[in-house]
Amino acid sequence: MTAETLSPDILKPVWTDLPRLPGLNWRVHAWQRVGYEVSVVRGLLSPDDPTLAHACGADGTAVKRCFVVVDETVDSLYGEALHDYFTAWRIEPEWHSVPGGEDSKELDHVVEMTDAMMRMGILRRSERVVAVGGGACLDLAGMTASLYRRGVPYVRVPTTLLGQVDAGVGVKTGINHGNHKNRLGTYYAPETTLIDPEFLRTVEPRHITNGLAEIIKMALVVDPALFSLLERSVPGLDADAFADGGPLPVEVISRAIAGMLDELEPNLWETVLERAVDYGHTFSPSLELLADPPLLHGEAVAIDMAVCVALAHGRGMLSLHDTERALGLIRAAGLPLTDPVFTADLLTGALADAVKHRDGLQRVPLTSGIGRADFVNDITPREITRALEFVASYAEGAHGVRVPESEGAAS
Amino acid sequence: MTAETLSPDILKPVWTDLPRLPGLNWRVHAWQRVGYEVSVVRGLLSPDDPTLAHACGADGTAVKRCFVVVDETVDSLYGEALHDYFTAWRIEPEWHSVPGGEDSKELDHVVEMTDAMMRMGILRRSERVVAVGGGACLDLAGMTASLYRRGVPYVRVPTTLLGQVDAGVGVKTGINHGNHKNRLGTYYAPETTLIDPEFLRTVEPRHITNGLAEIIKMALVVDPALFSLLERSVPGLDADAFADGGPLPVEVISRAIAGMLDELEPNLWETVLERAVDYGHTFSPSLELLADPPLLHGEAVAIDMAVCVALAHGRGMLSLHDTERALGLIRAAGLPLTDPVFTADLLTGALADAVKHRDGLQRVPLTSGIGRADFVNDITPREITRALEFVASYAEGAHGVRVPESEGAAS
Repeated sequence: MTAETLSPDILKPVWTDLPRLPGLNWRVHAWQRVGYEVSVVRGLLSPDDPTLAHACGADGTAVKRCFVVVDETVDSLYGEALHDYFTAWRIEPEWHSVPGGEDSKELDHVVEMTDAMMRMGILRRSERVVAVGGGACLDLAGMTASLYRRGVPYVRVPTTLLGQVDAGVGVKTGINHGNHKNRLGTYYAPETTLIDPEFLRTVEPRHITNGLAEIIKMALVVDPALFSLLERSVPGLDADAFADGGPLPVEVISRAIAGMLDELEPNLWETVLERAVDYGHTFSPSLELLADPPLLHGEAVAIDMAVCVALAHGRGMLSLHDTERALGLIRAAGLPLTDPVFTADLLTGALADAVKHRDGLQRVPLTSGIGRADFVNDITPREITRALEFVASYAEGAHGVRVPESEGAAS
Repeated sequence: MTAETLSPDILKPVWTDLPRLPGLNWRVHAWQRVGYEVSVVRGLLSPDDPTLAHACGADGTAVKRCFVVVDETVDSLYGEALHDYFTAWRIEPEWHSVPGGEDSKELDHVVEMTDAMMRMGILRRSERVVAVGGGACLDLAGMTASLYRRGVPYVRVPTTLLGQVDAGVGVKTGINHGNHKNRLGTYYAPETTLIDPEFLRTVEPRHITNGLAEIIKMALVVDPALFSLLERSVPGLDADAFADGGPLPVEVISRAIAGMLDELEPNLWETVLERAVDYGHTFSPSLELLADPPLLHGEAVAIDMAVCVALAHGRGMLSLHDTERALGLIRAAGLPLTDPVFTADLLTGALADAVKHRDGLQRVPLTSGIGRADFVNDITPREITRALEFVASYAEGAHGVRVPESEGAAS
């Protein structure tokens, strides 16, 4: 119970009975260590694989409780397999199902989960929250785990491509509020993230495409080799390809995660607001929830990326050739390039909110070549209008690319 | 944007184009630095004192916005003085009033505050939340500040004695849920805490007493010199005494804060669950909100402390003399020793919840002498019954202290 202390901020020690001298001014300093693992493990639900059991703190000899959060899709497709696995390892799950999807990221579900954890009487450190589901389910479960008694440990098992390369990789949790994505949230690392590509076999095509958007993002801002891989493989990168494995899809997922972790680790709490991984996340956070019919997260990111590709081209940062490659890859992946809600006015408003999020500056990452990002702070409404026109023109006919007037493309 | 990375957890580098090698397993490591100041500053609202303005990021030359959260008491008593101060320093406050008191620590108020921050369009890093109020107001504002965009900076100005020696000192925020104190919350350090004892002049006697409970707690578990000071001064330690200053009340506040920070700093995220500062906080978190008429936080803590003093005495950890001194000081401060809701049954239930909070063990701090705490894990319902009887008997007549049968007092 005696404290290790640093030198107090007062000049002369008069008292010696307290480690920290009484006075009128004190400075508190501490470092919090955060560490977690991200692993790709095939056959996670096979009873002869101990990985998930160990992550739950179970060894099969004694009964172990955990609080399991699944989304409805996982519940119906994998509920039985999960129960069988838990039974085999003597894990007693307290089962909690949430709707899943972006709509489920609301405060009401945090409260319901809190109530269920209270009924279970989860222990604060040795019993874990285990979230198995898509990105929204992980964000919601992570947020609740971070708040319950100021934090109980949690384990993430992302079951969608977006979850496996994005939501499951970092430390951000969150819920939406007032049509704004993740307006409330926390930074809260899981103990571990377990990624089983076999879950992807049951993911519908639109949701595979959704995840490809975040992979394309990583390729565009940090990984030209991944970009080339995607160009070679995208039309065939479907659910079965990911689930079956094989060098190419394994390489795609592995590079996407590695690139993401490289960007996140030195800036885990977003001390630096210039983040390459925010590519495609400048306009989309304000517009994703406004679109009708609704856009998936990756779809909104794809449209944002298309605008940013055109903005970069308009500024001479990206050659016409690379611009066409970038827009071409987004389209080849089956992602949209435009949406009626992405108007110049709404994009300008969304940028204003991004400026608040980025503390007064735009800090918009734009590609300066495939696989490289630079930050700009002076995007104008006029530029946005032109970028939209450029993308629309590209989208109308793949071959009819028109260089925006007066700005001139770089070579 | 290039990342500083640690050695990846795979054996042989095959790729060299990414800093972190692609593979199937990655380990993420990072340290978060947390630092904040706690200062006692008299005359904080005097326009010639720059401390609060500087804490708001203002220097009087340019307009600076901040989001000001006050509780209703502060609003009515100090609203005008605060406005005058802000005007003098060219601070434009976005004003948000909350009810204050334990009842205000609910999710609805987090949402209202979030909405107000969205309307203001607070910048994420350079505009601050400034909370001026009692402990509940600080807990609520701190929680909202920690969640809004995953954290905006905040400044705390505690205006009650409890706030100044307890809620304003550490890094815990929280709201109550399901009759449980702080069931949801975060660890989130303010940038600074500014303590002006002059606010205490308008604090009603019951709330001064409320704060004394936490000061007595620190004396009982870590600071025998503070205990002696309190014994000498308690009947006169009223609002005016604290507000006027003078060596004794200054010393009392200063020692209480210094002792608290000593305990908190090496264990800021409660990695170690044996916390001396949890003294008086074993039974009270479950019972404080059940009492009718309601108990203030410090009152519930006082009754919990009285039970713990008797438990220590019953175990021979605390002499009869020191037991009487401890109970005597709690009573002399004007704090209750008993309450109808603190029955043996409810205490046993509260202990069971504390066991969950302390991850499966009781870890109850008990005084082993004035100013020293040891932890026990084997308190029985029978002991609790006897401890209650002991306190009741003491409370009925100061001189009629009865040593609990069979357990025998230590010398």
